[in-house]
Amino acid sequence: MGRVGGNRVTFDPNRIVMSGGATGANETVIFCLADPGDAFLVPSPYYAGFARDLRWRTGVEIVPVHCKSSNNFRITRAALEEAYEKAQRSNINIKGVIITNPSNPLGTVLDKETLRSIVSFITDKNIHLVSDEIYAATVFSSPRFISVAEVMQDMDCNRDLIHIVYSLSKDMGFPGFRVGIVYSFNDDVTNCARKMSSFGLVSSQTQFLLASMLSDDEFVGNFLRESSKRLAKRHHVFTKGLEEVGISTIKSNAGLFFWMDMRQLLKEQTTKAETELWRVIINKVKLNVSPGSSFQCSEPGWFRVCFANMDDKTVEVALDRIREFVLQGKEETKLEADKSQAQAQRWRKQNLRLSFSSSRLYDESLMSPHMISPHSPIPHSPLVRART
Amino acid sequence: MGRVGGNRVTFDPNRIVMSGGATGANETVIFCLADPGDAFLVPSPYYAGFARDLRWRTGVEIVPVHCKSSNNFRITRAALEEAYEKAQRSNINIKGVIITNPSNPLGTVLDKETLRSIVSFITDKNIHLVSDEIYAATVFSSPRFISVAEVMQDMDCNRDLIHIVYSLSKDMGFPGFRVGIVYSFNDDVTNCARKMSSFGLVSSQTQFLLASMLSDDEFVGNFLRESSKRLAKRHHVFTKGLEEVGISTIKSNAGLFFWMDMRQLLKEQTTKAETELWRVIINKVKLNVSPGSSFQCSEPGWFRVCFANMDDKTVEVALDRIREFVLQGKEETKLEADKSQAQAQRWRKQNLRLSFSSSRLYDESLMSPHMISPHSPIPHSPLVRART
Repeated sequence: MGRVGGNRVTFDPNRIVMSGGATGANETVIFCLADPGDAFLVPSPYYAGFARDLRWRTGVEIVPVHCKSSNNFRITRAALEEAYEKAQRSNINIKGVIITNPSNPLGTVLDKETLRSIVSFITDKNIHLVSDEIYAATVFSSPRFISVAEVMQDMDCNRDLIHIVYSLSKDMGFPGFRVGIVYSFNDDVTNCARKMSSFGLVSSQTQFLLASMLSDDEFVGNFLRESSKRLAKRHHVFTKGLEEVGISTIKSNAGLFFWMDMRQLLKEQTTKAETELWRVIINKVKLNVSPGSSFQCSEPGWFRVCFANMDDKTVEVALDRIREFVLQGKEETKLEADKSQAQAQRWRKQNLRLSFSSSRLYDESLMSPHMISPHSPIPHSPLVRART
Repeated sequence: MGRVGGNRVTFDPNRIVMSGGATGANETVIFCLADPGDAFLVPSPYYAGFARDLRWRTGVEIVPVHCKSSNNFRITRAALEEAYEKAQRSNINIKGVIITNPSNPLGTVLDKETLRSIVSFITDKNIHLVSDEIYAATVFSSPRFISVAEVMQDMDCNRDLIHIVYSLSKDMGFPGFRVGIVYSFNDDVTNCARKMSSFGLVSSQTQFLLASMLSDDEFVGNFLRESSKRLAKRHHVFTKGLEEVGISTIKSNAGLFFWMDMRQLLKEQTTKAETELWRVIINKVKLNVSPGSSFQCSEPGWFRVCFANMDDKTVEVALDRIREFVLQGKEETKLEADKSQAQAQRWRKQNLRLSFSSSRLYDESLMSPHMISPHSPIPHSPLVRART
């Protein structure tokens, strides 16, 4: 943790509580901080799994803080205030804010100014801040990653309100090893999390391997450098390939994914149209991307594209398919435009609209919602009111 | 699982849901079956960790079913009915019964008749049965282990109400590997548990090792045979050594522990006296045993002794210390008896009473309750009503 933060912060080993992956770490923090019915503000778009990790078993709710594409989905004080006040008016007890830095799904890092503004906000409201920093070491170009632990050092804030979740799944590529960490500056939370750690202990065999691996400074240094280099290259190839066919992405420098703007390909600016486009991409273009609605994005038409979990050949195939799809869309659009000039004028960016005339098969209404859904994990808890 | 049950039952691989140890498996089952405020009947004495595993985060309560030494702590229909009715009178919603078979801390297996009686009970009440069978393969002499899965085969019962928790921690000696299993005959519970499995996934590295190890039938067979042989021998040496100084134990043939009767050494038949005796054993005799109160035993004076986690030399040292302690107790008792015949006559088994005249240091009232407690894990949840 110290290393990925550029050794600007010294972490106290006594505050580290291990847990079964970031999933377990996030749940543990929520169990420690909140009672059933309480809620946390989470800037959207946010990790789809939060609906499960933070809510299912804790009984806690998520109140999205809607961030907008107009400022590259920055987390602003105004958006935080708006969500907080709206929750208060609905008698929802806000226990804190949960940020992911670097962001999943945006792939962006929070700058110092934004972090300071968030810490000020939670200090003013006297609520908690959970900073999920599991992608800290995936930053592959500037600006560098800044941990909340660094920012709070020279701020007048209540350290008891600040908690970090870390994991080795992404930074070291060990998702299956189930190694998560709760690092709280609050003694009570640290103690509580430690007492609950039996629910998510890390396999002793895995601990043994990791202790040996992580104590090899040279290996870790080389691994992280090589990983950064490869991520940077792959990110460049992928986003540039998309740019060439007119698809833009949010400028990002971290994570294993980027945030792709497909608004121009939507029939209309609705979640329904986004889901329809997603079905076409999944079933016809045969690319596995995740629609913004899975991340509670307030604007339809954005998709998360994972670029790290494939080989170079697969990237080429993926780019070819997208190119063909977009060019075909241009053709169809042109034909339709010739046929019906009046209708075409209602489209904002005529040259890239798709008609989806052949995509009725994938229409939401024609398919059982259980057959295929973009939302994984499912947003609602599998726990039902127990009858028997 | 099939193997340790003597291959009398075929388990369906599709029903197996992995979880992080039996701790996680038990919690998952409770999350699936019950709502906060609901309760489960658990025959006592029961595993001290249940207070944590079943309750802390689920908000579910445990209602002990008091079993008595007079019939070797058998689980009777009468005791189940009594606990159930008492709970009903207190408006507590009983969702089910949780048994551990073989029993921790007794080290005994449930016979077919008892199992049938429990299945009948839960069928009549239309409540769930969770059978924790994590010690199944530790049975080292007859009678053999009988799984609830075997008993229910020829019974007229609702399979949807029956769930098994299994683990490799004890049977294969992998406590640190965190491998637990939820096996439910109920599709909804299986599905729900599977959706929640992200909270307790088994390390992929560990899964890989286990897949290779467990598929080696010869190794597993040899391991279990050798383990049984050693447990049987150790159990015999330990219990016989105690018998020689007049300390009896509940006849048992499974588990890594036995249930030792120290009632004759209590100053009075109270939990306070039991805790006092425990402090003497821990601090003066320097043996780590667990008092019955940690297992919610309704009769004071019983202690769980783990006999498997030490080498032969340590067993000898332990037995020597107990012998010395008991013989010294006899001496002291004799002196006191001479001094005060009247007082001595109130003692039931005069020859083994201890005065603990030198043990005031360990008196409950003189020590901070936080300094030393026999209860591990602590029975109350670390979760407090969140304030900030």
